[in-house]
Amino acid sequence: MAVISDATKRFLLAAKHAEIKALNQLASNCKLVTSVKDVIHQLQRERGISNIFLASGGERFEQQRLQQIEDSNQVEQNLRSLLKSLYMSGDESAANMRLLVSISMALQGLDNLSSLREKIGVQDLTSLESTQAYCRLISGLLSVIFEAADVASDPDITRQLVALFNFLQGKEFSGQERAWGAIGFAETHFSVGLCDKLHHLQEAQQHSFDVFSAFAEKHANQQWKTIESSQTQADLERLRAMIDQLSDGSPIDGQLSEVWYDIATSRIDAMQSVEELLTDRLTSLASALVERADAELKNHHKRIKTLEQEPAASGTPLTMLFDPQMPGLKGSEPFGDEIIANAENLSAHRSFYDLLCEQSQHIKKMSVELDEARQAITDQKCIDRAKLLVMQQWGMTEDQAYRRLQKTAMDQNCKLIDVAERVVKATKKVTA
Amino acid sequence: MAVISDATKRFLLAAKHAEIKALNQLASNCKLVTSVKDVIHQLQRERGISNIFLASGGERFEQQRLQQIEDSNQVEQNLRSLLKSLYMSGDESAANMRLLVSISMALQGLDNLSSLREKIGVQDLTSLESTQAYCRLISGLLSVIFEAADVASDPDITRQLVALFNFLQGKEFSGQERAWGAIGFAETHFSVGLCDKLHHLQEAQQHSFDVFSAFAEKHANQQWKTIESSQTQADLERLRAMIDQLSDGSPIDGQLSEVWYDIATSRIDAMQSVEELLTDRLTSLASALVERADAELKNHHKRIKTLEQEPAASGTPLTMLFDPQMPGLKGSEPFGDEIIANAENLSAHRSFYDLLCEQSQHIKKMSVELDEARQAITDQKCIDRAKLLVMQQWGMTEDQAYRRLQKTAMDQNCKLIDVAERVVKATKKVTA
Repeated sequence: MAVISDATKRFLLAAKHAEIKALNQLASNCKLVTSVKDVIHQLQRERGISNIFLASGGERFEQQRLQQIEDSNQVEQNLRSLLKSLYMSGDESAANMRLLVSISMALQGLDNLSSLREKIGVQDLTSLESTQAYCRLISGLLSVIFEAADVASDPDITRQLVALFNFLQGKEFSGQERAWGAIGFAETHFSVGLCDKLHHLQEAQQHSFDVFSAFAEKHANQQWKTIESSQTQADLERLRAMIDQLSDGSPIDGQLSEVWYDIATSRIDAMQSVEELLTDRLTSLASALVERADAELKNHHKRIKTLEQEPAASGTPLTMLFDPQMPGLKGSEPFGDEIIANAENLSAHRSFYDLLCEQSQHIKKMSVELDEARQAITDQKCIDRAKLLVMQQWGMTEDQAYRRLQKTAMDQNCKLIDVAERVVKATKKVTA
Repeated sequence: MAVISDATKRFLLAAKHAEIKALNQLASNCKLVTSVKDVIHQLQRERGISNIFLASGGERFEQQRLQQIEDSNQVEQNLRSLLKSLYMSGDESAANMRLLVSISMALQGLDNLSSLREKIGVQDLTSLESTQAYCRLISGLLSVIFEAADVASDPDITRQLVALFNFLQGKEFSGQERAWGAIGFAETHFSVGLCDKLHHLQEAQQHSFDVFSAFAEKHANQQWKTIESSQTQADLERLRAMIDQLSDGSPIDGQLSEVWYDIATSRIDAMQSVEELLTDRLTSLASALVERADAELKNHHKRIKTLEQEPAASGTPLTMLFDPQMPGLKGSEPFGDEIIANAENLSAHRSFYDLLCEQSQHIKKMSVELDEARQAITDQKCIDRAKLLVMQQWGMTEDQAYRRLQKTAMDQNCKLIDVAERVVKATKKVTA
């Protein structure tokens, strides 16, 4: 009978415990992400309202702004309570390191939100400066979601988080398009540079929503298609086309500003329904995973116990020493038939080894699936890195660097990620 | 003055704690790896001795075998005590999941080592079966080192572990070459098939040692070069060439078996010095890292405390809301100059924010360096995966699949990893 030492059993159980711990952490991160999404939504509204307040010299939206600040404060408080209850146990997983720093950075922004609001209240900032500050805060919050996706250890959840991050990123670009558009209307003309910015934001939206579509499930995709084929979307397209025709600097009625703002806003508000679908699904996925892992752990315990109590069955249980599936002596395959026959003979009673192999297979399978699901994140990091390298090498802004990469991809008829990979690899060679 | 909430500070510290936890875990894993390396070495010796014992019908090496079993037991006990003290705290990092399963698998093999020895003692196994069983056990132990490299969170340690894993893998292939060679001499002739196996093992050794060289530091590389240019190596090459000329089936004196065995053994024994260099360096790297991180944490605490006690300096401290380095509104770069001027004005007193940015930069830098150091591991996984896919698709053995990939790479004049990536990508498309 194959011997199973206590240590062997304990390590198998420890692996299962580690898996459950990872899943619990993941469930916490999903709750966090849902709360962060709410804060982003309210701050996007606050950014728009503050903009109109500043642009109108404090004439308009004074009350709406105060109401909105209350709404924003509410979701911020929710986020802060959640952070306290989820993460401050002192038992932080090492894998969460980057997530924790991104949370700290986002909190530093939120800490200073009230002084930003004071400045806006006394109109001590231009609407552009105010927009810029809100954008940075939202970008910091989006980083939290990106990092949560990056540390996720389950392929389904990773896919869902990639979809969510990209959807929120796309929504944020929509909000920025609305802001720049509002500036153009307020100035009663659109310069070539401004039209260029708007185009760039439209492309960036498209890219984010494409990644979202590729990773989201049927339900969320359908909801998104409904928005894309809505009257609001058609109205927005018409306004976009109109702005395009004004790039020669022709004047436009400043009153259109409100029409633009309302249409863009109703489109952005509609996006909330997709966000909700994504985070609801995330929550149910996470709790199902934790439940399943708990059940599996109980089952592990039970099977080990049964195994200990059962009288040794006839036949020798298989050990990894004689398992033909285990890699061993290279080039010994021709003798395999014989060994397999042997192994089958041995396998009458192999429960513990079965359990061990199952767990090993399960973890390997998860790991391969996770790598696949993480491809979008890896690609994103590679593009960011290439952008940074181009910025450093050519003294470009982020936007210019991104466009340079995009143009190269278009000229060479290949994907952006392929160009980015080449840039990163080429730099590695030079510095190596 | 910029407000810093308690939560912001606590998350920054939590990130540092998570980093230290990861480094402590890493230091444990380095100790484990060192101990596993010792077990592998003794089992390789035991495999060789058992082989001669079985091949000689129990005539030879009876005493040596008993002595070797004692030596093997000693290092096994060391490993078991270490495992108990390092990993059974119930506080397993989720990142260690795969490492824990690989440990459990290796232990299952060790648990059954005594019954393997009994069978060998009564000559109830052929020397090939015995070799195969030891190879599986060693392969299981090598997996532990591979997984330790895979979960390592520091680029320098990762590089060192990649070097060590590949060196040990190369040494194991050398051991397998010794075993097949011994079989040929014992049979007094070398078939084409056997010569083929030997070639394959020589290639595999070369590949492993090449990866080792690329990742190892100067010292270890120099030591390895000394071995490669030694008389023993030259003797081995001569014997290899001689075997090559025998592939037509010409008979050979069985007495040469001992010469072959002694030369191969003295080469393998010499490799131990390189192993020692690698694991010593690993140990010192790991303790230096833990020390540094502890010092940084103390420094973090001190700086935060100073910041709390200092009276607010003149000037407004910078927050992420007004930091031009933070990504914000896309397309706002042309206005950047103004904002940068503003930021400089604000930056008179920005210590906490500095600390936050430093930590964020530090973690990002580590993460990029880690990705680079992990390339060899990622490549190895990709090649393994491609091999598995080819095995499944064409009903091939592992060896055949590997050779198919290698031949394709040679025919297309590209690297093995490029072929493997194509195979994995192509399969993804089919199943998507």
